[in-house]
Amino acid sequence: MGDVGIVATRFYDWPGSLQLESGARLGPLTIAYETYGELNAAGDNAILVLHALTGSAHIAGRHSPDDRLPGWWDPLVGPGRALDTRRYFVVCANVLGSCYGTTGPASINPASGRPYGLDFPIITIRDMVRAQKILLDYLGVKHLVAAIGGSMGGMQVLEWGFLYPEMVSAIIPIAACGRTTPMQIAFHNVQREAIYADPDWQGGDYYGTPGPRRGLALARRIGTITYKSDPSWTMKFGRTVVDPEKYYHLEGQFEVESYLAYQGRKLVQRFDANAYLYLTKAVDLHDVSRGRGNYTEVWNNLPPCLGIGISSDFLFPPYQVKEIVRLIKAGGGRARYRELNSPYGHDAFLIEFKQLEAIIKPYLAELRPDLSG
Amino acid sequence: MGDVGIVATRFYDWPGSLQLESGARLGPLTIAYETYGELNAAGDNAILVLHALTGSAHIAGRHSPDDRLPGWWDPLVGPGRALDTRRYFVVCANVLGSCYGTTGPASINPASGRPYGLDFPIITIRDMVRAQKILLDYLGVKHLVAAIGGSMGGMQVLEWGFLYPEMVSAIIPIAACGRTTPMQIAFHNVQREAIYADPDWQGGDYYGTPGPRRGLALARRIGTITYKSDPSWTMKFGRTVVDPEKYYHLEGQFEVESYLAYQGRKLVQRFDANAYLYLTKAVDLHDVSRGRGNYTEVWNNLPPCLGIGISSDFLFPPYQVKEIVRLIKAGGGRARYRELNSPYGHDAFLIEFKQLEAIIKPYLAELRPDLSG
Repeated sequence: MGDVGIVATRFYDWPGSLQLESGARLGPLTIAYETYGELNAAGDNAILVLHALTGSAHIAGRHSPDDRLPGWWDPLVGPGRALDTRRYFVVCANVLGSCYGTTGPASINPASGRPYGLDFPIITIRDMVRAQKILLDYLGVKHLVAAIGGSMGGMQVLEWGFLYPEMVSAIIPIAACGRTTPMQIAFHNVQREAIYADPDWQGGDYYGTPGPRRGLALARRIGTITYKSDPSWTMKFGRTVVDPEKYYHLEGQFEVESYLAYQGRKLVQRFDANAYLYLTKAVDLHDVSRGRGNYTEVWNNLPPCLGIGISSDFLFPPYQVKEIVRLIKAGGGRARYRELNSPYGHDAFLIEFKQLEAIIKPYLAELRPDLSG
Repeated sequence: MGDVGIVATRFYDWPGSLQLESGARLGPLTIAYETYGELNAAGDNAILVLHALTGSAHIAGRHSPDDRLPGWWDPLVGPGRALDTRRYFVVCANVLGSCYGTTGPASINPASGRPYGLDFPIITIRDMVRAQKILLDYLGVKHLVAAIGGSMGGMQVLEWGFLYPEMVSAIIPIAACGRTTPMQIAFHNVQREAIYADPDWQGGDYYGTPGPRRGLALARRIGTITYKSDPSWTMKFGRTVVDPEKYYHLEGQFEVESYLAYQGRKLVQRFDANAYLYLTKAVDLHDVSRGRGNYTEVWNNLPPCLGIGISSDFLFPPYQVKEIVRLIKAGGGRARYRELNSPYGHDAFLIEFKQLEAIIKPYLAELRPDLSG
């Protein structure tokens, strides 16, 4: 049992041009990725991890010895861990449209020599998956033991099952859905509006300036509310105030407000506002039935599925994961549902590592006994 | 059975100065109110209705024959209705800090001759109740059959029970809580920040200018999400798009987004942004135990309570109303819990009139059989 140590993000420059779902073409592409463990000779021991909205390819280890924090799924990736790097070749790529090294709205548009900004085309979850497929081909990966991820990552997991069912032994969507609901879209709408309403957004053409810091921070505050839960807020903050002297002042703050402001500021330091617009839009457009038929009837050619819900998640409630499992079974496939029993809301897939390990590890061993030892 | 017909908002100008909970004094006050039915000679057949965040005193009837809509609780107020104006004298007053005629931040500050703006003092739910008491004294009301209201109205209902227990036969809080939770505060925090972040807010000194329209509209969009529920959004909008031609555009909208924008625009036309700041703050500060003792131990001198929760409310979940009922019972009082079975979320107290009538009407009759016929 151990961690993966010091790792580095690598970059694949693909010279081609990707046909996007919208009809537009995008290329050349840079795809940022990290890998852990070794690909076997057959190229069939890979596990693809898909990240959420503001995530990156950096899921495990540290980039330097003095890194304050390891990657976002570190407790699950390493020798002896759930995604055991002695057995599996673990890959994670930054999604198309993001800002952690993969081509996105902040990248230079070869047509203009300037950042794309709003000239960047609309990206869908399927486009993200097709870009990942390009990377896996380059890496020599022939087959995935599993595609796994939470939230927007879970949407990519599903699209892996739809687009490349023969290439994946199992899909493991966590806290995700087959199509986003109007409430999820509504929460993204107000986050985008917070960015649009910031004069410093400048129609998306803010590169070289500080950009819409206050708008992006507000978007993140709103998002943060949806990633937690009523009981988790109450446990963490109660009604404690920051400064009792300011109790009867408009600017007086409860601890929870100070925390929200902190989360907003933190994101501004690390994320691009236009990428936030494009990725939330990609999530809103997520619908596995688009162009494929009736929503309840398109699930009949998927790999086995382990759907994992979160008991206290009100953004992606458990019923959405249960629905995925039910529809795959109704389509004749194999699927099972497991639930993280957690007070932490949507964020639980980034917190409840012990429960995740207990669910994922035996499932993977069952899938590929030849890789288990 | 019928409606109350044409009604008018009246205004009581109180020359005094109210000692606020913060220590500040505020006066003179104007209190806007409406009444329906007749006060009896004993002055003891009154029912006080308390309104929610952006509500007004206009609960029933129309202000003119061509009014498009009646007051916000019209189906519950009138001859033969739940609040039967043949028996009860029904009163509703616009709360302190609002913008529908009662003194608030948009009112003229006698000290400066200009609107208060941020010179307006912080208002609490208890301050609102004390202003209502001044109005009731003026109207000659000696006793209330009940104080009733939803959301912020329900908080005032509770404070009526705490401040004037001997004056109220029963309190009927709907979709309310004994103290706001950090999650509720968080949702208000992002709504206030949307207003603060709008340059047109101008530090609250925007009177005579259009004011922070975009910020207030965004605040309302966010609020609107919290007033509905996941199933109600899905029933109403599904994933319908406004313009299929713009499906793959950042500015493309789902119907739910267009609806949110509409709700935002509508509020801007009718509500003052500073009032929105002060009233959301009043809700955040709501805590019936402040200055009274431990939260679980202050409930022992309350009038009988009928607490009404809403099954699908995620902003004020049913457990909060159940808690009120449980704590009053534990304190030796009489309390019962009823629930609106509704998919409409928090807004259900403005929608589920048949269920409300079925719950409220017999309860009132039981309270005061002498007034029932």
